[in-house]
Amino acid sequence: MALQNSSMKRLFSTAFQVRFYSAPAERSIPAAKQKYVPTSGTYPKGFLAGSSHAGVKPSNTKYDDVALVISEEPCPAAGVFTRNAFKAAPVTFCQKLLHSNDEKVRGVVANAGCANAVTGPIGRQHAVDMARATDECFDKTAEGRTLVMSTGVIGQKLPIDRIKEAIPKAHAALGSTHQYWMSAARAICTTDTFPKLMSRKFILPSQPDVEYSMAGMTKGAGMIHPNMGTLLGIICTDVKIDAKSMHRYLSAAANRSFNSISIDGDTSTNDTVAFLANGAAAPSAAAPLTLSNQGEHANSDSKAFMQVLTDFMTDLAKLVVRDGEGATKFVTIRVKSARSAYTARRAASSIATSPLVKTALYGKDANWGRILCAIGYAPGIIRNPGLGLRAEGPPEEKRSNGPPKTHAQVSMQSTSVSFVPSDGSEELKLLTLGEPAEVDEVRAKEILEMEELEILVNLDDDPDKKSRHMHEAVYWTCDFSHDLKLDRIVRL
Amino acid sequence: MALQNSSMKRLFSTAFQVRFYSAPAERSIPAAKQKYVPTSGTYPKGFLAGSSHAGVKPSNTKYDDVALVISEEPCPAAGVFTRNAFKAAPVTFCQKLLHSNDEKVRGVVANAGCANAVTGPIGRQHAVDMARATDECFDKTAEGRTLVMSTGVIGQKLPIDRIKEAIPKAHAALGSTHQYWMSAARAICTTDTFPKLMSRKFILPSQPDVEYSMAGMTKGAGMIHPNMGTLLGIICTDVKIDAKSMHRYLSAAANRSFNSISIDGDTSTNDTVAFLANGAAAPSAAAPLTLSNQGEHANSDSKAFMQVLTDFMTDLAKLVVRDGEGATKFVTIRVKSARSAYTARRAASSIATSPLVKTALYGKDANWGRILCAIGYAPGIIRNPGLGLRAEGPPEEKRSNGPPKTHAQVSMQSTSVSFVPSDGSEELKLLTLGEPAEVDEVRAKEILEMEELEILVNLDDDPDKKSRHMHEAVYWTCDFSHDLKLDRIVRL
Repeated sequence: MALQNSSMKRLFSTAFQVRFYSAPAERSIPAAKQKYVPTSGTYPKGFLAGSSHAGVKPSNTKYDDVALVISEEPCPAAGVFTRNAFKAAPVTFCQKLLHSNDEKVRGVVANAGCANAVTGPIGRQHAVDMARATDECFDKTAEGRTLVMSTGVIGQKLPIDRIKEAIPKAHAALGSTHQYWMSAARAICTTDTFPKLMSRKFILPSQPDVEYSMAGMTKGAGMIHPNMGTLLGIICTDVKIDAKSMHRYLSAAANRSFNSISIDGDTSTNDTVAFLANGAAAPSAAAPLTLSNQGEHANSDSKAFMQVLTDFMTDLAKLVVRDGEGATKFVTIRVKSARSAYTARRAASSIATSPLVKTALYGKDANWGRILCAIGYAPGIIRNPGLGLRAEGPPEEKRSNGPPKTHAQVSMQSTSVSFVPSDGSEELKLLTLGEPAEVDEVRAKEILEMEELEILVNLDDDPDKKSRHMHEAVYWTCDFSHDLKLDRIVRL
Repeated sequence: MALQNSSMKRLFSTAFQVRFYSAPAERSIPAAKQKYVPTSGTYPKGFLAGSSHAGVKPSNTKYDDVALVISEEPCPAAGVFTRNAFKAAPVTFCQKLLHSNDEKVRGVVANAGCANAVTGPIGRQHAVDMARATDECFDKTAEGRTLVMSTGVIGQKLPIDRIKEAIPKAHAALGSTHQYWMSAARAICTTDTFPKLMSRKFILPSQPDVEYSMAGMTKGAGMIHPNMGTLLGIICTDVKIDAKSMHRYLSAAANRSFNSISIDGDTSTNDTVAFLANGAAAPSAAAPLTLSNQGEHANSDSKAFMQVLTDFMTDLAKLVVRDGEGATKFVTIRVKSARSAYTARRAASSIATSPLVKTALYGKDANWGRILCAIGYAPGIIRNPGLGLRAEGPPEEKRSNGPPKTHAQVSMQSTSVSFVPSDGSEELKLLTLGEPAEVDEVRAKEILEMEELEILVNLDDDPDKKSRHMHEAVYWTCDFSHDLKLDRIVRL
């Protein structure tokens, strides 16, 4: 009855899409993903993009794998970086650069195929070399103008000579129109099945006649990449922003976008999102947008821009979830809490990363027990300490050794869970105030057949529906399917 | 080329082993697992075990699904329970019972097929009813003598009448020999492929002529169970233990055993391990074993017993990992740290639960980058906050908003990683003091072909090998294979 393992592998490599390494453009993009790839765009003034071929992976003989995105004039920049304690060389390079210069940055150089992570002093030198080779394209005397990103295999050295040769070629190939931006977006891809590029126009309330633009690209972080699901992002806008405020805008928007998606719960050594604002569309007299360290907006323009940036980065981050390896569903997790935003966020994060929840979604199983379970182990300190078994001592010892207080922030009796279908039809209640609902299984299956779905959790549901302030956290994630754990064949 | 989804499903259900629900005894136990099922044993004096059929799942018309394990005389008991904030009714019942009575417990009643979780006030009453029905078997006036365990589907009510009828039948079927213990071990199984029962003899230093025994059973927690991977455990010994010390022994041993295994990282609503010590083998004059609240042993007997209990529970817990759904490897994660036991434990836990590490192990990929990555996001607070991107502010803000101090406890430059083969041959160094080793891929593949494997991480490796105290944490886990995420067909 049982097939041989090798037969299974062969079967898988034909039954499921094989992911290639680098540059999805010249291959067919999956039909279901084509709608996410724009054929035109409106790009911010004073920015240029381009790419060239270095052959970072020796087997890559034709696809561009070095990308440049630059501003024609030096401009303020900011970055958000992985919290992983083992940061790759390009990450520490960028952090250092932005500490000494966050006002006069020219752009970003990125390579795919090798992460330059865990490469010691040589790796640090290679990151410096990539930046310097790019700086030299701008001006022989320029220094410290370029941010560096790498994605790919860990623990291997960059073929730095080939990359240094490719950088001037990418610079010579720079352009401002859609095709150039697309070439850069393709060049940073690894096992992505489609390039992730977006652009949009916006206006600010006090300057209704000025047309601003924002463009961005991202790559990764599919489910279980063969060599780490690194996420890279580059966001450019031609609005004028106060240099000191740059990282505040980026950080706030990142928390609601890239920090609110979950694919496999792993945090790579290289994750980086860079943000550049060159003010090229702004009248010279316009005051730069300013956000205080406490998050106070200087004016309505700042507030409006914050929303534009957050929405843009959210849409960009969602593209990463859409490309999750093995994903068949796009799932929104929305958690409400009257107690704290922290509680809502921890619960949402825990649901979004629970393998039990994600396999149930794939299996079209309305298993709200798994959702509750994931909430139940989320708050406080218990995160994967084995099975999390705790001893019950006699009462006098219990008091000094009780559960952490954050546990008190959820209670079964006030928790409700429902599925919200993506077609606007009525939600399906699964649990109401801790009591299981009589679930219409046909309706549940109907909702679970849909490609998009929202799980709505209210941790402080109120039968009297008295109005009170509810904190809300939203995560975006995907299901785990058959395709997830295959011993995947990845070819260039 | 692509197969239809339904064809795939059919294929899977034949190509991989289908897990049934409840009672693996009367079906064939997988050949590779038969060595873990004992055919005889030495059981503690004064304990009896048995089982009966209730048909908790209506489709179960013949397999026993109610188990009893009891002491002939009331005895001290302790329990460790899930830290999940949403605890099932039997869990809260046991916690309450042990708070008021941890000295005169008779035993444990358990059912498989329904978890009695998220069942509201009726569920709490059902847990009380199960205990009472058992108490009445001992003595019509007995009360509060029985611990209760349930495992199975969440959110459904127990068929309490059928269970109440089955309990006296299980009581009538009690016995002290191997076959009775095995029948109880089988009756608590859900999707386990083999019953998990162990027994052993031991002596204490001050009483070399007294033969003590310990026996225990466990069930679960395979990878991705259809209805929550609940772990249950029951451990009985005929040594005499001070009632107040019971939970101290159990808690310490649980932390190094059941709390050091990881299958899928989820913590169920029902996880419970109970521990009973009836002193039936001890001469009446023997002083009870005593462990202080600070973990100080009263004498060498206590110390020796602690080791016996820890070893026993470790071996029992390992059986759960051996039965992980989709697992093909048994993996030991050993992490050494000169700084703190906490750091070692967090790193070990993070490696043991990383999907990227576990799929690499299945794929026989010596990808130490994933191991490092998992360590890198382990310490401190970053546990699945999306992608964990952190903004870099200007230097003056950096100071007040820096990374948590625990991050400082790992550094690439002092970290070494190797694979330790299970056959006693030399370890294979993958990373030495932060520098990638030249890995002999043939040797790596050889080690990764083995069914057992140790990943050894030294976070404070010392090139001069000066002797200093190293904390060590050990986790046991399994790989993630093809078989993991299938939309599994589970039949009774």
